[in-house]
Amino acid sequence: MKMILAIVQDKDSQQLQTKLVKDGFRFTRLPSTGGFLKSGNSTFIMGVEEEKIDDALNVIKQACHTRSQYVTSSFVLPESGIGDPVEVQVGGATCFILPVDKFVRF
Amino acid sequence: MKMILAIVQDKDSQQLQTKLVKDGFRFTRLPSTGGFLKSGNSTFIMGVEEEKIDDALNVIKQACHTRSQYVTSSFVLPESGIGDPVEVQVGGATCFILPVDKFVRF
Amino acid sequence: MKMILAIVQDKDSQQLQTKLVKDGFRFTRLPSTGGFLKSGNSTFIMGVEEEKIDDALNVIKQACHTRSQYVTSSFVLPESGIGDPVEVQVGGATCFILPVDKFVRF
Ligand code: NI
Ligand code: NI
Ligand code: NI
Repeated sequence: MKMILAIVQDKDSQQLQTKLVKDGFRFTRLPSTGGFLKSGNSTFIMGVEEEKIDDALNVIKQACHTRSQYVTSSFVLPESGIGDPVEVQVGGATCFILPVDKFVRF
Repeated sequence: MKMILAIVQDKDSQQLQTKLVKDGFRFTRLPSTGGFLKSGNSTFIMGVEEEKIDDALNVIKQACHTRSQYVTSSFVLPESGIGDPVEVQVGGATCFILPVDKFVRF
Repeated sequence: MKMILAIVQDKDSQQLQTKLVKDGFRFTRLPSTGGFLKSGNSTFIMGVEEEKIDDALNVIKQACHTRSQYVTSSFVLPESGIGDPVEVQVGGATCFILPVDKFVRF
């Protein structure tokens, strides 16, 4: 048993949740914030048997795309002209696989 | 020192919190979602000395009962007649005990 | 790579977040509750290379002060007279450094 803790952008969280349910992975989802755009994200916590880790990471990889998007907020690059659209990366996931000493359910 | 990360159904979270405070365990509690009924749950994070792990797990076991409940939502089993009550398991806790390299308080 | 999981009192969370961004540490922040005063706190999760752990802990130490404050709530010490101000410690952080088996970004 390992724990996967995955921080997932809001744009991708619902798609990931749907795929995890469909593929029979158990998880809990916590609201979180942070990152370059200060946009919301979700933190998924999953307990996964070692032989299923690659499958789980593949599900996350499929659901969570890093991709370009243009935003006009002057927050992103204050030195650019106000309102100039700038290209930023959105989506994606940051995943930690953690060792687990013991796992119990009541 | 170990970290216990326990995902606890909403029905049991308040009772667990009360017992942990009473027994002198320190913890933080995070709102989370997930599980079969998509009901809310809470994620408890505790730092526990190794010789207290069994005590802590006993507190969780006492406070968090898995038990049967009848629900009428057609969400649970869409193929059953709408409104037919079905038996589901509610309550309970899923606990991970994680190794900790270092613990510091400021 | 290690994971730092830091539970930080609300009074210190915004200052910590600002400093982490300024110093280039990546993190996510989750709302949480718990502690003696039942006040809100935040749980910061960071992935940090081993050679940066001390730097990260120093940032947390600088931003999160444990300090005295007087409160009048009878909740704190019910046996004292109602409305008697009592001194309590506020602020501060509880930090766990966790081993990480694998770290991936998509
Ligand atoms: Ni795709
Ligand atoms: Ni009982
Ligand atoms: Ni200071």
